[in-house]
Amino acid sequence: MLAQKDDEYFMKQAFAEAMKAFDEGEVPVGAVVVSQGQIIARAHNQTQLLDDVTAHAEMIGVTTATSNVGYKYLNNCTLYVTLEPCVMCAGALFWSKLGKLVYAASDEKQGYTRYDDLLHPKTKVVQGPMAEESRRLLQAFFQSKRKKSS
Amino acid sequence: MLAQKDDEYFMKQAFAEAMKAFDEGEVPVGAVVVSQGQIIARAHNQTQLLDDVTAHAEMIGVTTATSNVGYKYLNNCTLYVTLEPCVMCAGALFWSKLGKLVYAASDEKQGYTRYDDLLHPKTKVVQGPMAEESRRLLQAFFQSKRKKSS
Repeated sequence: MLAQKDDEYFMKQAFAEAMKAFDEGEVPVGAVVVSQGQIIARAHNQTQLLDDVTAHAEMIGVTTATSNVGYKYLNNCTLYVTLEPCVMCAGALFWSKLGKLVYAASDEKQGYTRYDDLLHPKTKVVQGPMAEESRRLLQAFFQSKRKKSS
Repeated sequence: MLAQKDDEYFMKQAFAEAMKAFDEGEVPVGAVVVSQGQIIARAHNQTQLLDDVTAHAEMIGVTTATSNVGYKYLNNCTLYVTLEPCVMCAGALFWSKLGKLVYAASDEKQGYTRYDDLLHPKTKVVQGPMAEESRRLLQAFFQSKRKKSS
């Protein structure tokens, strides 16, 4: 019998998306949206490519997922993202009525947890899997940017 | 000499966008983005049409404006919107480093002013023009929805 795919499995898929962002010179944040054990959307940060400050992994993930499920709300879905969502993305997750949010690294500076109750009251939140790897990837990205500009 | 276009003039343009949303059966919120006295983006809520909870007037306005100015930040722009932005939109305005926000009707339930400091610290905020007209348009929309569903 196949082992049930768990939060770590799906976060590794989100991490693979973050690696794509890294390779493209984007801030390395990746996300996947899962419904009934299946990935229905994969996304990574594309703010540079699209020249669009709103093109965060979560925003693209929500839009792609709703398009794929043919239903505006994600109340039966889990979003896995390698970095704690920002206020904008938390607001989008609120409107999507997301069922469950799993995020890896914390974002003390821009993360949504600086404020109370930004998510929908029915959204469950889990933090943990791949947090250290995701944090290190972001750190490596910003260090390489600093080296290039110095 | 032509009178200089003022906040009320541009809010009327945003209101015209809200009217388009109303006619399309969307929650009637409209926005325009202005740079150097010129409208560089017009947008209205399209969440129903696009089946996308993130398709608020402000989000479309920001994305269209940045695409039109060819620059990721809107620090020299003013966004006029007929309803106080929600948390998601305020988060997007933060990332865009918006120069000035002018909004009409307040949104006590979902508006961003329930929280402190969601906008960029350099964003100036003005509330007022067309507030009553914008509020009434929203009220008329929700009343007509309730009638249809009763």
